[in-house]
Amino acid sequence: MRISVDTEREFLESVFKVQGFNEQDGQLLADTLVDADLRGISSHGIQRLQWYSKMIEDHTLEPKNQPKILNETPTSLLIDADKSMGQIASAFAMRKLIEKAKAGGVALAVIRNSNHFGTAGYYSRMASKEGLIGISTTNTRPLVVPTNSLEAFLGSNALAFTFPADPHPFVFDGATATVSSGKIQVLAKKGEQIPGDWAVDENRNVLHDAKTVEDNLATIAFSDDRPGGGVLTLGGNKEVNSNYKGFGNSLIIELLTGILAQGSLSADTNKAPHDFSQFFMTINPALFGDLETLKANASAMFDRIRHLKHVPGTKIMIPGDREYQNYDDNLKAGINIDGETLAELQAISKQYNVPLPIDEANA
Amino acid sequence: MRISVDTEREFLESVFKVQGFNEQDGQLLADTLVDADLRGISSHGIQRLQWYSKMIEDHTLEPKNQPKILNETPTSLLIDADKSMGQIASAFAMRKLIEKAKAGGVALAVIRNSNHFGTAGYYSRMASKEGLIGISTTNTRPLVVPTNSLEAFLGSNALAFTFPADPHPFVFDGATATVSSGKIQVLAKKGEQIPGDWAVDENRNVLHDAKTVEDNLATIAFSDDRPGGGVLTLGGNKEVNSNYKGFGNSLIIELLTGILAQGSLSADTNKAPHDFSQFFMTINPALFGDLETLKANASAMFDRIRHLKHVPGTKIMIPGDREYQNYDDNLKAGINIDGETLAELQAISKQYNVPLPIDEANA
Repeated sequence: MRISVDTEREFLESVFKVQGFNEQDGQLLADTLVDADLRGISSHGIQRLQWYSKMIEDHTLEPKNQPKILNETPTSLLIDADKSMGQIASAFAMRKLIEKAKAGGVALAVIRNSNHFGTAGYYSRMASKEGLIGISTTNTRPLVVPTNSLEAFLGSNALAFTFPADPHPFVFDGATATVSSGKIQVLAKKGEQIPGDWAVDENRNVLHDAKTVEDNLATIAFSDDRPGGGVLTLGGNKEVNSNYKGFGNSLIIELLTGILAQGSLSADTNKAPHDFSQFFMTINPALFGDLETLKANASAMFDRIRHLKHVPGTKIMIPGDREYQNYDDNLKAGINIDGETLAELQAISKQYNVPLPIDEANA
Repeated sequence: MRISVDTEREFLESVFKVQGFNEQDGQLLADTLVDADLRGISSHGIQRLQWYSKMIEDHTLEPKNQPKILNETPTSLLIDADKSMGQIASAFAMRKLIEKAKAGGVALAVIRNSNHFGTAGYYSRMASKEGLIGISTTNTRPLVVPTNSLEAFLGSNALAFTFPADPHPFVFDGATATVSSGKIQVLAKKGEQIPGDWAVDENRNVLHDAKTVEDNLATIAFSDDRPGGGVLTLGGNKEVNSNYKGFGNSLIIELLTGILAQGSLSADTNKAPHDFSQFFMTINPALFGDLETLKANASAMFDRIRHLKHVPGTKIMIPGDREYQNYDDNLKAGINIDGETLAELQAISKQYNVPLPIDEANA
């Protein structure tokens, strides 16, 4: 079934209010989930609400807490999120980094004691709206098996990189691993199979049953057990296809987040305090040339790539193309909600006594 | 056969002197090639000398030219390499960025009108020696097919990321593509097959004959023809295994290099002036914590990963482990030179009247 964007936003804002977030924070949180659903990144949309609610109940997440600046220089920020939701400290950091990059050309922020921050692209897109390059990363729960390893250690470790362009910015936004766990969750909820080489068992045999993989990942991420197996690094199962490069990419994010923040490694976020760390950067391209010229050159390059000879029946898409198309489509058609997520939302509606208006015509 | 490191260095310095480089630049160039060979990155070692020499002959590369600063701020440098060898402007930029990051925490450099710069890791390791995080990137000749594309457009677009650690820094250093063209060149020179899914033909069928692929890549990179096919993005041939993430990684480098520098795109470097562009960054981790603590934490994480349960008969290696081991081994054993490269070096020896002393015992 589909629900309208207004319905989704209103429901989320009401739930977050009852959960104790202030109005501004609740609006931000709702906006990040609605934005993900609009862009077709349903793994990071309203389907995460159940997890967020659970984190409030077990005090992994404190809705009333606010981020604090521990250290600030003209080029940097070190922030303690104080167990608030990741979105709150992240948007706060990115707003400050935008000012800093406009003044000094480049700036970095590291956040500790944080939580899940939604999609990485939400924050790097804030920078691109201001004519800046934006970079946004986070570590996560343990999910990913290093090259040759039989057990998970790394997070899916999202990276977003945004560069100003027309008709929309370049937005690379995704797990450094082959996929995020959310993508497998969505397939499991729909009862679908995994179509590619995304995850392995304790002997590094590729698994295709999404429910089996999802159950295994949940055990790894949310308990003290590490039964073996996990999500593959980019490059797949075989070292000969350079999966050590995907491993390296994931480790770079681990260094910029958990290590620089002196927070938990992804490997250890299965245990309390379950803290995530984030890293952000803004770069002013005007350090190197006229912004409009750089934008025009980037846009022209993307157009050339879109029109290269390609496999019949396929399209060459620049990072961001699909999400901006989804955004326009879903704004009209409404947000698609799978049956299991709907049941979760109905339970939350009951628990917090917040009505979930369903357009029965579309149900 | 193997030659000693001293022999390699002396031969290279002598050739570069005859070619017109000043003493300091010739020593730097020789050092970058010797360093690559020592680390087992033979794709970027002395086997590149023939190509470098050819670039001097066709004036893609001007040995006497020196880099010029076009714009400088406390956090940035824009440099015109003026067709000098990439190593010269790159080392110059990195030395300045090290000073800037020590003073202000973070700094960026973009270089235009440059050439091949050797291994990306050479420059990011300069930063790690000073307790800094180093990032080093370049675009290249056109080689890589975007997701779903039947023709090459992107460069192999190297990325190096270095983080201080013990007993050696973390050094991620490689093409963002599945492999660099140099790796295929080395197999072709040895008459070996490609062991994985690295390259495709004009219909995106995977090719395994290194000589066939090498000939195709040379046509794409060095002529006006674009016969179709090329090297795969990280993630392989199938979109379902997220090869669009590898494509995105390669595009990020293209944006930071050719676009920010307003130089040629990788796609256009087959035509004169064959210019490459580079991007560098230094970050002072002391912005966020005590360097020795951060180093110790990173080193401890790497050790935990090295000791995870793993596939029997394999090893889990942290980026840099193999190269530092090779370095120690090759320093003792000497540098391995394949037969075809030896023939190339003998021709260069004759052309420039520089003796190439061969230890016949090892030949």
